[in-house]
Amino acid sequence: MDTVFYAELSWPEVEARIAAGAPVFLPLGATEQHGRHMALNVDVVLPTAIAARAAARVGGLVLPAVAYGNRSQPRTGGGPGFPGTLNLRADTFAMIVRDVICDLHRQGARRIVTLNGHYENIGPTIEGIELALDAIGRDRTADLIILRIDHWELIRPETLDRIFPEGYPGIELEHASVIETSMMMALRPDLVDLSRAAHDGPARFRPYDRYPRPCDEVPPSGVLSLTAGSTAEKGEWLLADCEAGIVQIIHREFS
Amino acid sequence: MDTVFYAELSWPEVEARIAAGAPVFLPLGATEQHGRHMALNVDVVLPTAIAARAAARVGGLVLPAVAYGNRSQPRTGGGPGFPGTLNLRADTFAMIVRDVICDLHRQGARRIVTLNGHYENIGPTIEGIELALDAIGRDRTADLIILRIDHWELIRPETLDRIFPEGYPGIELEHASVIETSMMMALRPDLVDLSRAAHDGPARFRPYDRYPRPCDEVPPSGVLSLTAGSTAEKGEWLLADCEAGIVQIIHREFS
Amino acid sequence: MDTVFYAELSWPEVEARIAAGAPVFLPLGATEQHGRHMALNVDVVLPTAIAARAAARVGGLVLPAVAYGNRSQPRTGGGPGFPGTLNLRADTFAMIVRDVICDLHRQGARRIVTLNGHYENIGPTIEGIELALDAIGRDRTADLIILRIDHWELIRPETLDRIFPEGYPGIELEHASVIETSMMMALRPDLVDLSRAAHDGPARFRPYDRYPRPCDEVPPSGVLSLTAGSTAEKGEWLLADCEAGIVQIIHREFS
Amino acid sequence: MDTVFYAELSWPEVEARIAAGAPVFLPLGATEQHGRHMALNVDVVLPTAIAARAAARVGGLVLPAVAYGNRSQPRTGGGPGFPGTLNLRADTFAMIVRDVICDLHRQGARRIVTLNGHYENIGPTIEGIELALDAIGRDRTADLIILRIDHWELIRPETLDRIFPEGYPGIELEHASVIETSMMMALRPDLVDLSRAAHDGPARFRPYDRYPRPCDEVPPSGVLSLTAGSTAEKGEWLLADCEAGIVQIIHREFS
Amino acid sequence: MDTVFYAELSWPEVEARIAAGAPVFLPLGATEQHGRHMALNVDVVLPTAIAARAAARVGGLVLPAVAYGNRSQPRTGGGPGFPGTLNLRADTFAMIVRDVICDLHRQGARRIVTLNGHYENIGPTIEGIELALDAIGRDRTADLIILRIDHWELIRPETLDRIFPEGYPGIELEHASVIETSMMMALRPDLVDLSRAAHDGPARFRPYDRYPRPCDEVPPSGVLSLTAGSTAEKGEWLLADCEAGIVQIIHREFS
Amino acid sequence: MDTVFYAELSWPEVEARIAAGAPVFLPLGATEQHGRHMALNVDVVLPTAIAARAAARVGGLVLPAVAYGNRSQPRTGGGPGFPGTLNLRADTFAMIVRDVICDLHRQGARRIVTLNGHYENIGPTIEGIELALDAIGRDRTADLIILRIDHWELIRPETLDRIFPEGYPGIELEHASVIETSMMMALRPDLVDLSRAAHDGPARFRPYDRYPRPCDEVPPSGVLSLTAGSTAEKGEWLLADCEAGIVQIIHREFS
Repeated sequence: MDTVFYAELSWPEVEARIAAGAPVFLPLGATEQHGRHMALNVDVVLPTAIAARAAARVGGLVLPAVAYGNRSQPRTGGGPGFPGTLNLRADTFAMIVRDVICDLHRQGARRIVTLNGHYENIGPTIEGIELALDAIGRDRTADLIILRIDHWELIRPETLDRIFPEGYPGIELEHASVIETSMMMALRPDLVDLSRAAHDGPARFRPYDRYPRPCDEVPPSGVLSLTAGSTAEKGEWLLADCEAGIVQIIHREFS
Repeated sequence: MDTVFYAELSWPEVEARIAAGAPVFLPLGATEQHGRHMALNVDVVLPTAIAARAAARVGGLVLPAVAYGNRSQPRTGGGPGFPGTLNLRADTFAMIVRDVICDLHRQGARRIVTLNGHYENIGPTIEGIELALDAIGRDRTADLIILRIDHWELIRPETLDRIFPEGYPGIELEHASVIETSMMMALRPDLVDLSRAAHDGPARFRPYDRYPRPCDEVPPSGVLSLTAGSTAEKGEWLLADCEAGIVQIIHREFS
Repeated sequence: MDTVFYAELSWPEVEARIAAGAPVFLPLGATEQHGRHMALNVDVVLPTAIAARAAARVGGLVLPAVAYGNRSQPRTGGGPGFPGTLNLRADTFAMIVRDVICDLHRQGARRIVTLNGHYENIGPTIEGIELALDAIGRDRTADLIILRIDHWELIRPETLDRIFPEGYPGIELEHASVIETSMMMALRPDLVDLSRAAHDGPARFRPYDRYPRPCDEVPPSGVLSLTAGSTAEKGEWLLADCEAGIVQIIHREFS
Repeated sequence: MDTVFYAELSWPEVEARIAAGAPVFLPLGATEQHGRHMALNVDVVLPTAIAARAAARVGGLVLPAVAYGNRSQPRTGGGPGFPGTLNLRADTFAMIVRDVICDLHRQGARRIVTLNGHYENIGPTIEGIELALDAIGRDRTADLIILRIDHWELIRPETLDRIFPEGYPGIELEHASVIETSMMMALRPDLVDLSRAAHDGPARFRPYDRYPRPCDEVPPSGVLSLTAGSTAEKGEWLLADCEAGIVQIIHREFS
Repeated sequence: MDTVFYAELSWPEVEARIAAGAPVFLPLGATEQHGRHMALNVDVVLPTAIAARAAARVGGLVLPAVAYGNRSQPRTGGGPGFPGTLNLRADTFAMIVRDVICDLHRQGARRIVTLNGHYENIGPTIEGIELALDAIGRDRTADLIILRIDHWELIRPETLDRIFPEGYPGIELEHASVIETSMMMALRPDLVDLSRAAHDGPARFRPYDRYPRPCDEVPPSGVLSLTAGSTAEKGEWLLADCEAGIVQIIHREFS
Repeated sequence: MDTVFYAELSWPEVEARIAAGAPVFLPLGATEQHGRHMALNVDVVLPTAIAARAAARVGGLVLPAVAYGNRSQPRTGGGPGFPGTLNLRADTFAMIVRDVICDLHRQGARRIVTLNGHYENIGPTIEGIELALDAIGRDRTADLIILRIDHWELIRPETLDRIFPEGYPGIELEHASVIETSMMMALRPDLVDLSRAAHDGPARFRPYDRYPRPCDEVPPSGVLSLTAGSTAEKGEWLLADCEAGIVQIIHREFS
């Protein structure tokens, strides 16, 4: 079948593509508040779409996204207590990554790319990869390469300059803001309604965290920075950067 | 937004619907071989679609499916070593269920339905629910109801008689066979290609399991019974049973 | 010493028998309600006795039974909240199985049979076996065979026909019913008192589970089907089937 | 039924006895080498028999023994690599204790006694008890008393003087030696064959442990001290001490 | 005794100070390579010293540092495979944090500050805090405040401008570089030998991670940026910022 | 640098010493009440100092001490509920030991000594070592030796006779008593104030444990035996024994 989506293929098709060396992408997402103007699935939609575009270019396969992410934090995603957000413990998330990688390895996959869309997943993804390597056996991994990519790291400085002519506020405030909103407008305009954006940011965070009751610095909307200026066109610029960046990485690492 | 899918809503919409008592469905699936003629996502597509139909009827919400299932077994799914299949450990699966239920409870959801499409998920789903109840605190659950449904349990005997006039081979052999194939033909005909069905079944299993090398009784295609006679029309009969069954259960339990 | 029971031997005797290739049986049981008319140890007595009979035929050894089982469920055993029942978490049970198998392997045992008497143990037994294989190292298991047997699977259709001339109600309703009662009457008549049987069944279960308060369909006695007609003679028929079935399996797999 | 054994009762009988305040004994044992002259089940037989004698005196119940113990150590039991010995990880053992105590508490049992026969179980028993108290909730334990007894601690100095007129070598060398052998001769003479005792002790241990290859100070027989002089009569003296000690403790703590 | 160090006090002194509301600081460090010119204990020395200075100002107590940190990563610390570095799994680190916080809470401590010196500890510290809150019980934490501070977040922009007149390279490259080196020169000049600094940086990292063999972009010395220009005087500026920042936070949050 | 402390060295220095075969000492301590007259860090100070003295003699390295110990017990340390004491779960402690040993092994260390100062650490240290051996792979440990030493085991009988001319009360009552007090007076006289000793011992323990409220036999001061007669001179005798004992062991095992 003509698809990049692993789970839409039958097993003989998957077997053949992996035997042929197809890179396998694992999108890592979250179900997390993204402001009043966007759906909860932003962190699933973006890495899945980016992975699909890149996979189409490099003959890769895209696994079902992990749709639940590690505990959202106030300074990067609104926090674990925000309505709508569903949080996994770090250990749970790491074990999903471990199990999926181990089973991909069992099948012969040796080129694996985790593509992450949720900041708080970074740590438990690393943990899951390391646990998988322990489980596989470090001395059996000579031909295995696992890449861990956060899609926002692939945006070129030139693109940020175009989008933020008055200066980039920094990725840590970009939750549900111009970058994510623009990319969603390009990919799933039906899931964005800019008219509901609240413009109650940007957040000014204190340089520490407080538990169990976080500091009240998250704007009520959940948008950490600004949404004004988001457009589908900018979204396409960003997606193009991500796609090109991954293609380049794949060529460098898997050739 | 006019959707039953939880993750397509913004957080204020989810908050409002849960506050209004919307039942929340958690589809539990797998990425598992389903014969040469079907995609690997059958166990995700079926419970998601059934949940969506039922949710539309009862004002419910459908969460993102858990797309990776507990270890496939030879006698029910071909086995954990089949190409294409990606297996989670029981503990990993149970922890996903635990974390999602705990966080739904934190948000105020009190009517939760796990809808399962993969036989091997039954045990760790029960475990995950019990662990969630422990974590929430048994004395804080007076108003909480969690239902655990396997969709195939909702098929009426009359429907089985219509589909299998010469006798129903039993659900345990139905993996990738007429029931699942028919429902997929109704829902995602693009993911079924009956011309590739191998007709190498039905499996005749010995009454025990062998490890680490399972007995070689799984038909090479991975289809445990037969695919012949699968039609989209039969699929609709089956989906109608499941939908009606859930609506009836919801009314009984949540009124 | 002339016994099949592993723990009644001294270590040099065990060492010699394992070196000689003796199959090692691990009975997996539970401490679980079995109606008003039977003791809580049915799921321990049955697999231990069956294993002992089979071991005597094939030169095997029988380990101490795991006397505590995984969480009893309403539809198969009355449920985890029944008085008398003592439930282990799935993870605890799996770890026992893992540890015992790993240590048998360390001693040189390569022919291991888990013989199960409690339905809810199936999943965590599989998990424990798989975890043991991971711990041993998959590439060190070329000469290892582990069989997983549920004793009720070995009953021949002919025997069921003799015992249930009006039709077999199905194994899932057999908890504490004619099959288990008859076998207990054959093995431990002192632990059965048919005069206390309540005849409040059979259960008619809804096709789903409810938590934390299960549906009230378990008959108050805890007997899911019927006890009437149980006899020690029928018990001997059943035990003979189980014994013969295991002997046959052992010959097929371990020769 | 007229028995102290919990698992030989039906659920209504257990329910009634626990409601009446019966102390519940959990024997904690091991399957561990005990020299060439004794069976592997010494650590199960002793605490089970002692618990049964004490329970008969105080109206108590005796649970099925945990028949697998925490990792045997060279200086106290020969070590985890001895043939015949089957070792559980500390975590596995602690979780069994936790789960059983939690479920006893759920049933209303408030007087629980763990009676231990295997030195290496001490630590994970404490851990299991503490984990159970965490799981139950520390603020729900006002009426709960759990006693943790090692049976050898109940032997009176006078008895040791009678048995060892030339001086007691210390409990840490008593593994498979006069104390355990004598008690086994009193309880299960069929499982003792003094003619096979090797007299290759006593062990002289260095004051440290070595891993992964322990120091070679364990006598080849596995007997750490001496067996000469063991008699059933001495065994009865010892058992009487243990029984009386427990009865006294029960009266002090549970009245 | 006149000390801020918790473990140098006797228990009655600790009891009295906690009863009086003393904030308790938990320094979180690592044993990790910090270039050829510095000791492995930088991440322990810095948060311990900063905590001690702040505690002296606010009547606080400083716990023993957690001296082993979560897995070092190439882009922030050289990576888990660097000689000298000792890495804990994320789960291990989180459980230490959980256990210490739970036991501080048991003693009555309600003002807890984790002060972190190792970037990779951030995630598992958050996890440990959340697990502690679960274990304590969320409904028992009304009077509990836990602050999580990374000391480098407290450096004022003015100070960075003074130290880096040509522009701050960013905290992520500061591993073993001017900031850490200067603070160590102020605190423990005996553990710094600038003459051994290698000047093989700064690192230019690719925007992704590779496993199991990381990209070879870490400078051979392990210093990610530059050490030139490090002085004890600058170290004092930085320490003064950290101290003042914490004092200010303590006054804001604990008054 | 001229130090035995691992963490005070730079990574090239550690690398060189380990390559040269330096034994690596891991001090295992606790933060635990030690009476009204001593600081909480006794179990850290003693093994660290003893390890440092021994390391200086044998060219060894001393790692940062694990400053938090496994749950203090009433009969050996006052108990987990004593003010000041901070308790780790057994599992947490074992995982620290496992992770540190695994990472030492990765670096090439093959001569590892855990030196313990806290009785309750014994069990989880053994567990941690065994788990490390599992993780490393039992078949990769041919050249690895791990020694597990409790420092009090190295005190010679002659020294005990000199210190306790009227008879040694036994190590189990020595918590915070003459032995520990004397060694602290020799090492850290600033952390001992004999004038605050309470003389409310010795404890007379019942031969069992009670949970969740321990028997009230711990003297209010937390000192299990006596402090009278403690002197720095006696402390030096004891330290000399420990140092000499370790040097002797190192020569026997690592030559």
